[in-house]
Amino acid sequence: MTDTDPKQDLLVRLHRIEGQVRGIARMVEDDKYCIDILTQVSAASRALQAVALGLLADHMSHCLVDAAQAGGQEKDAKLKEATDAIARLVRS
Amino acid sequence: MTDTDPKQDLLVRLHRIEGQVRGIARMVEDDKYCIDILTQVSAASRALQAVALGLLADHMSHCLVDAAQAGGQEKDAKLKEATDAIARLVRS
Amino acid sequence: MTDTDPKQDLLVRLHRIEGQVRGIARMVEDDKYCIDILTQVSAASRALQAVALGLLADHMSHCLVDAAQAGGQEKDAKLKEATDAIARLVRS
Amino acid sequence: MTDTDPKQDLLVRLHRIEGQVRGIARMVEDDKYCIDILTQVSAASRALQAVALGLLADHMSHCLVDAAQAGGQEKDAKLKEATDAIARLVRS
Repeated sequence: MTDTDPKQDLLVRLHRIEGQVRGIARMVEDDKYCIDILTQVSAASRALQAVALGLLADHMSHCLVDAAQAGGQEKDAKLKEATDAIARLVRS
Repeated sequence: MTDTDPKQDLLVRLHRIEGQVRGIARMVEDDKYCIDILTQVSAASRALQAVALGLLADHMSHCLVDAAQAGGQEKDAKLKEATDAIARLVRS
Repeated sequence: MTDTDPKQDLLVRLHRIEGQVRGIARMVEDDKYCIDILTQVSAASRALQAVALGLLADHMSHCLVDAAQAGGQEKDAKLKEATDAIARLVRS
Repeated sequence: MTDTDPKQDLLVRLHRIEGQVRGIARMVEDDKYCIDILTQVSAASRALQAVALGLLADHMSHCLVDAAQAGGQEKDAKLKEATDAIARLVRS
């Protein structure tokens, strides 16, 4: 697995999460045991969180670094935007 | 539609989350701005969390109450199972 | 240490967290490196979360079981109170 | 008190959290109602989270911006360190 495309990797993970959520709906339809459904919901949440952390790392290493190098208002605006996104993530 | 069916309500919410995740994949494909994608990921996470809390409340008011009324080992096993699920949820 | 008193155990853990928070303040005063301070804040958060999960498990196995066995309005009120506390915990 | 010193502000918040944790221990000693104790634990967790987000924003606007401007290995190392700290925070 050399040279995985980060965008392709992200899409694979998102399609897997979409499948997980569809599977959870099927478990609800089939009246599966609540605790088993909850286990799947926790797994999907963790997978979404991993996607978010990947997106954030990618954003910081590109947009944020560019803005830091540009300096000035651009830097301040991008920093505020990134820390706001991190706060939403931590609180979600 | 007063007296909404909790199972139907859960399915509607899960199908909406599935659509949200599909929308996030589309944003990634279209190279949308990272921060806008992250906002949608946070929204989907919160929606999944709300589903989990709903499932848990439902589980507690049925299975857990039944087990508490039965008492004995059944009660202890169901309590342990529920607190483990809550711990996974809090940590996810 | 067989038969640890749950209340005593909780107090020991809370005093340790109090010490962790005091240590974090000292690191801030001494201008320690942000990332090292953040690591300690994450550790204190996880310790507080463990205390919360312990308190909740204890509450469910006593008050909630009693209320489930009593039934009626008492049961419904205690269930609502517990699920609200779980929701606050999951969201904090 | 215009122009508050960020370090001083952080110390004030940490001393307040230390007091909150001490208050929680006192509630446990006095056998206060679990749900009321849990409410205070959630409040202390949120306060710690706010401290973490403040520290992180401060770190990003100083160390991370400096490293981005320096470029090279320094930049890559600081980015990895920051994203690891964010991941610990999101998961705690």
